[in-house]
Amino acid sequence: MANSEGPVGIATTDEITLEELQLAARNHGMPLEGLRYDVTPIGMHYLLTHFDIPEADEASWIVSIGGRVRRPFVFSVDDVRSRPVVTMPVTMECAGNGRARLHPRPISQPWLSEAIGTAEWTGTPLRPLLEEASLEDDAVELVFTGADHGVQGGIEQDYERSLSIPDAMRDEVLLAYAINGQPLPPQHGFPVRLLVPGWYGMTSVKWLRRITAVSEPFEGFQMDAYRLRQEAGDEGVAITRMLPRALMIPPGFPEFFERKRILDAGPTILEGRAWSGSGTVTRVEVSADGGVSWADAALEPSVGPHAWHRWTFGWTATPGEHELVVRAADDAGDVQPLDQRWNHHGLTNNMAQRVAATVR
Amino acid sequence: MANSEGPVGIATTDEITLEELQLAARNHGMPLEGLRYDVTPIGMHYLLTHFDIPEADEASWIVSIGGRVRRPFVFSVDDVRSRPVVTMPVTMECAGNGRARLHPRPISQPWLSEAIGTAEWTGTPLRPLLEEASLEDDAVELVFTGADHGVQGGIEQDYERSLSIPDAMRDEVLLAYAINGQPLPPQHGFPVRLLVPGWYGMTSVKWLRRITAVSEPFEGFQMDAYRLRQEAGDEGVAITRMLPRALMIPPGFPEFFERKRILDAGPTILEGRAWSGSGTVTRVEVSADGGVSWADAALEPSVGPHAWHRWTFGWTATPGEHELVVRAADDAGDVQPLDQRWNHHGLTNNMAQRVAATVR
Repeated sequence: MANSEGPVGIATTDEITLEELQLAARNHGMPLEGLRYDVTPIGMHYLLTHFDIPEADEASWIVSIGGRVRRPFVFSVDDVRSRPVVTMPVTMECAGNGRARLHPRPISQPWLSEAIGTAEWTGTPLRPLLEEASLEDDAVELVFTGADHGVQGGIEQDYERSLSIPDAMRDEVLLAYAINGQPLPPQHGFPVRLLVPGWYGMTSVKWLRRITAVSEPFEGFQMDAYRLRQEAGDEGVAITRMLPRALMIPPGFPEFFERKRILDAGPTILEGRAWSGSGTVTRVEVSADGGVSWADAALEPSVGPHAWHRWTFGWTATPGEHELVVRAADDAGDVQPLDQRWNHHGLTNNMAQRVAATVR
Repeated sequence: MANSEGPVGIATTDEITLEELQLAARNHGMPLEGLRYDVTPIGMHYLLTHFDIPEADEASWIVSIGGRVRRPFVFSVDDVRSRPVVTMPVTMECAGNGRARLHPRPISQPWLSEAIGTAEWTGTPLRPLLEEASLEDDAVELVFTGADHGVQGGIEQDYERSLSIPDAMRDEVLLAYAINGQPLPPQHGFPVRLLVPGWYGMTSVKWLRRITAVSEPFEGFQMDAYRLRQEAGDEGVAITRMLPRALMIPPGFPEFFERKRILDAGPTILEGRAWSGSGTVTRVEVSADGGVSWADAALEPSVGPHAWHRWTFGWTATPGEHELVVRAADDAGDVQPLDQRWNHHGLTNNMAQRVAATVR
């Protein structure tokens, strides 16, 4: 029943503990002005590493496919690179994005709104490798094991997550070895990682070492951890695809410490990005009065089938204090809530973003 | 008298405010396992941005040299690239590194120990450009102005810092346009930045737009902010070069939340990096008993004249709880203190690193 990103429960104050800060100093979000780029520049994409970034030697790196398969085999990174090449932009978000804005706050990696990014990934489709291994008829899931190792919830483990066979067989699921046209940096899973477009980031196992077909649903720690629960003991529901979310580039310029925004009166263009892993984004709305009244933003085509859309909104800024709000909806019927939908682990929080701005 | 990284004073509790977390979620340190690399991989180097990362168009980017010069001129990024090329590894640290470990805690960007990195920078020496501009005899400093704009300490400003003429004329001072062999990513100062090896990072102005020779010492906000003061009203002392510091790669593997280390009993090699901008690192010492007894680590030659040294230390880990400590000394006579040297802005804190480890 532990939380994958921190099993220590619920905060009793709004202030952040030293342990949470330790995580925030290691992991990092994408500064929201990074929303201006179709593809997030290298180094700006969000990162969450549960344990340590492992040391990796590409030349000797071997990935195995085994378990309930008829033809287990191993392959090198060169083998992966010699296979058909796919390059595509993919928007990825951490399942815990927004956690630190919940009241009370589930204690773990304390994300605000920045745990996102869109990278251009290069890899090879996973499915042909699974076909070559020939899954046994009783195989129901594939377990992906990374080289990152540590203790979480009292359990020593390699980081491991599973996918159902149909989910793993989807065309867009890749073994990726490059990002934005260059080899993966260590922190993004060098030399090879899983990439599952549309899903929250915990599924895209980095530093991939093993793919194991299993005949029973995998119940490892990280499966239990990423479930939507109201209380610690609930059975909960597994988290899979990203809910819709829109974020805006905070307009004007900031005050250093509070990050409050200052801008000049007059016509201005608000802009940002919106995405959903559960469907297609159909609408982005903006409010300049804290959510009392709303108007539609202009929504551009997505950067790719699994990547975000740019949106823009013309706003005539009038002197005074304003609260800007943006929310997205998708064709799966989800719309971002204005108020929190609290859960015990602080996962899939897609409450609408609010930005305080002073117009002068 | 405001603090450049947060003018709001001194914390009354050990917990971190939401405003500090906002900064920690934008800016980021280098996970300490990154100490294994001579040159920090792209995206792992620490980053502190006071305001927003500006949008920049390289083709139209112009830098001006003016003020107290006989031949003011402007130059493009292509002009910079057509000049003599220097590539060198440089270790850079934030002046506020370690701030969040002070008691009481100066409130600002809450760094623990990770605000460091060593990049391989490519650029052209600044001095020949200054010689072409021909400084007037009354010029005493050069002011470097970035494109990052905001409010700090109640003052609207472009980010600006100055250097004395002798400091700016040093061979190693560069206008840099590449990092680790690729164009600067936006967050590192694209398309061109100042690089002042040996100094804390605030001096290496990113997104460089103007170089202005002045006949009086520059008294802009960011000069006042980076001074060592015991109280807010003190005159204080300007901060310049990095004091010596050693850091270790936390050994073994981590527990996710507390980041406490676990390792097996037996012989192991502790390793890390040490640097100083004030002199040459002459000694690194390790204690495995919380600082009671010390032994010398083996110190390798530095990665470059302005970059860190690797150090190693053979340790026979015995079962139980240990506190590992490391400290460096340099030939300028500085040695890292075991206890804090508190100052009002939480700057140049080079207290020795302590790592708790459980040996099993």
